[in-house]
Amino acid sequence: MIYLTRRFDFAASHRLFNPEFSDELNWEIFRDCNNPNGHGHNYELEVTIAGEADPKTGMLINILLLDEIVREQLIRHVDHKNLNIDVDFLQDIIPTAENICVVFWKQLAQHIPAPHQLYRLRLQESKNNFAEYYGPVQISKN
Amino acid sequence: MIYLTRRFDFAASHRLFNPEFSDELNWEIFRDCNNPNGHGHNYELEVTIAGEADPKTGMLINILLLDEIVREQLIRHVDHKNLNIDVDFLQDIIPTAENICVVFWKQLAQHIPAPHQLYRLRLQESKNNFAEYYGPVQISKN
Amino acid sequence: MIYLTRRFDFAASHRLFNPEFSDELNWEIFRDCNNPNGHGHNYELEVTIAGEADPKTGMLINILLLDEIVREQLIRHVDHKNLNIDVDFLQDIIPTAENICVVFWKQLAQHIPAPHQLYRLRLQESKNNFAEYYGPVQISKN
Amino acid sequence: MIYLTRRFDFAASHRLFNPEFSDELNWEIFRDCNNPNGHGHNYELEVTIAGEADPKTGMLINILLLDEIVREQLIRHVDHKNLNIDVDFLQDIIPTAENICVVFWKQLAQHIPAPHQLYRLRLQESKNNFAEYYGPVQISKN
Amino acid sequence: MIYLTRRFDFAASHRLFNPEFSDELNWEIFRDCNNPNGHGHNYELEVTIAGEADPKTGMLINILLLDEIVREQLIRHVDHKNLNIDVDFLQDIIPTAENICVVFWKQLAQHIPAPHQLYRLRLQESKNNFAEYYGPVQISKN
Amino acid sequence: MIYLTRRFDFAASHRLFNPEFSDELNWEIFRDCNNPNGHGHNYELEVTIAGEADPKTGMLINILLLDEIVREQLIRHVDHKNLNIDVDFLQDIIPTAENICVVFWKQLAQHIPAPHQLYRLRLQESKNNFAEYYGPVQISKN
Repeated sequence: MIYLTRRFDFAASHRLFNPEFSDELNWEIFRDCNNPNGHGHNYELEVTIAGEADPKTGMLINILLLDEIVREQLIRHVDHKNLNIDVDFLQDIIPTAENICVVFWKQLAQHIPAPHQLYRLRLQESKNNFAEYYGPVQISKN
Repeated sequence: MIYLTRRFDFAASHRLFNPEFSDELNWEIFRDCNNPNGHGHNYELEVTIAGEADPKTGMLINILLLDEIVREQLIRHVDHKNLNIDVDFLQDIIPTAENICVVFWKQLAQHIPAPHQLYRLRLQESKNNFAEYYGPVQISKN
Repeated sequence: MIYLTRRFDFAASHRLFNPEFSDELNWEIFRDCNNPNGHGHNYELEVTIAGEADPKTGMLINILLLDEIVREQLIRHVDHKNLNIDVDFLQDIIPTAENICVVFWKQLAQHIPAPHQLYRLRLQESKNNFAEYYGPVQISKN
Repeated sequence: MIYLTRRFDFAASHRLFNPEFSDELNWEIFRDCNNPNGHGHNYELEVTIAGEADPKTGMLINILLLDEIVREQLIRHVDHKNLNIDVDFLQDIIPTAENICVVFWKQLAQHIPAPHQLYRLRLQESKNNFAEYYGPVQISKN
Repeated sequence: MIYLTRRFDFAASHRLFNPEFSDELNWEIFRDCNNPNGHGHNYELEVTIAGEADPKTGMLINILLLDEIVREQLIRHVDHKNLNIDVDFLQDIIPTAENICVVFWKQLAQHIPAPHQLYRLRLQESKNNFAEYYGPVQISKN
Repeated sequence: MIYLTRRFDFAASHRLFNPEFSDELNWEIFRDCNNPNGHGHNYELEVTIAGEADPKTGMLINILLLDEIVREQLIRHVDHKNLNIDVDFLQDIIPTAENICVVFWKQLAQHIPAPHQLYRLRLQESKNNFAEYYGPVQISKN
């Protein structure tokens, strides 16, 4: 088993709040991230695929194909967008890095062509924090 | 003359558009940056001060003081904010990196205590682009 | 299970030596790191927490709370300090990245509020080396 | 169990092609990477060792020794080289990041002195892609 | 006057040698960079434009236009290429970072639409070295 | 005129204080940097040389030669050292980034072989601050 990772960038805005909470509670929990007019980030997404390298090409998966899948399923929906408003598959979730990772997995995993498997998503929101998700049923290494 | 630079981070959202333009023209010029619901960035601001090091302290300017000034005059107004809506001194300008740099200069330069002078502002919007401004009347090096 | 990582910086000095060794042996083993007057680093510490995102907040753990815990238990003790002299919980250990990681774990793990768990500490000492520790009893992924 | 990682840089050129394929098929699969006169990268190699810290030194493995082994077994063979032509142990393989990782493992793993073990190789080819390999039989964490 | 910089990446191979020198002299001067089969780098090119922001758009120059010009005039000729063989405008020069910078300037400067001016090219060849060129006749700041 | 920059790393400890000040005043001015037992940094030094590329080699200055000069005159004196105690040419100065830059210039400038000239030193002390010095008499660009 070998692991291949591609990195993607997108710039997006978001606001953290739970519509069921009072304004006070939203502020207490989310602080600056609760600013009503939102704020934003340069997000970095790492997509890691696990599998065997094809002996005829030396490649786990063709990078051009992987890029096309990730751009089609994820990046074009979120780049230069407002994550609370503009993205179908992020409706009704609070767009924390943790939640975005899990939703991205649901969107992407089924589109990775067998026998390869999505192994990890890593979403970096700022220099100082990132979330990682290995899926609902994890592949054991090797 | 020696130059001292401090780096500051802030996360903000913005939308690029000119209210005097038609929607079509706004789209044609600003493309993705014109998305009506905005998008965002992790901005990096570098503030460069020019002057002589104080022989008693070896410091051009006390970094703690400089940090306090920049946070008070700039960062607290823009961090986790929407640059089109939330920031008094950015009203009525299109919040491109170029424009933000010039406005930040106007806000900050007067607060740098003499004999030090603001020498340069550098605002990085994403991995691939940044603006630099040396003020309306530039200090010649040395 | 999802993983959330926060990054912290601290600047510290240290000297590597074993008081039971002769000067010659200390030099032979630790070389430049054995300089009697010490040297220093900008350390980067990554703290990774494992758990489930709270459905009401979308957060694994409130970042403000995590920051407070890590600053209180670790960073305030080591930032702008001499690791051989100034830090209670580093007395009697040789302050290599490996040893610091294990000691930091002991200091921090018990303060992470259940049901979350400390999953990994990663301590980067310089561009070219870092240590990682997953604790005395590791959480299996998922 | 603790993990210690050292990072190494090398600059090399390569060309991706399978001599059994037609020119058309090579182009279709490898695209720009198939340019007949090659291209190149600044590669970053991370070597991770797993083991226990020696209580007398606080070190998992002496970094000076590890550096010497990795330079002798890997870096001196590939730095400022053409990976298709100049490297004995890369003959007859297509020099993708995936393949290089597996070959590097075979070259290096046997030279790591017991009781330490090679745990992971990570080869970064560009800002946006890297391969990781944990060996043919993986060490379980802890 | 404000300065806007865009960053571009390209991966290329090269070999440093002077065909008028003996093999011995080429080796003595260029060392590893003289390896007959070449080596390569991930180059980073920064293109800085000087001018005034357009009051109607807040932009010095439309980034989309600048990207198109730089890709058309420079990047498509050098990305995934061998700089000694594949690039028309690099024939008959030794492809050091210094020389490439000067040649890139000649290729690019004339294509920057007035009233904007090319102000600086910065070419980073590796983590540890880069060249900068401000053109044959330099614009004075302000 | 073209500019070539090389980057060097060194790890050192220091303490900021003025022996003529009281303990209280030293603390008030230097705060954490005044810790009696010191702290440290991974310093990054950029050395920029100005001149013309030699038409026979395409090089401003041979990088191997420049590296040797900078290591001999600067790096070997400060790497893995205590800047207050171990370095002859830093005696009697307060080792701020500003002061170190000026002292490094005095040590290095005379050793750059004519017709090349030292153009700039940039010393980065941490992610968030760096000093730059262009010498007592500056070369005008071009």
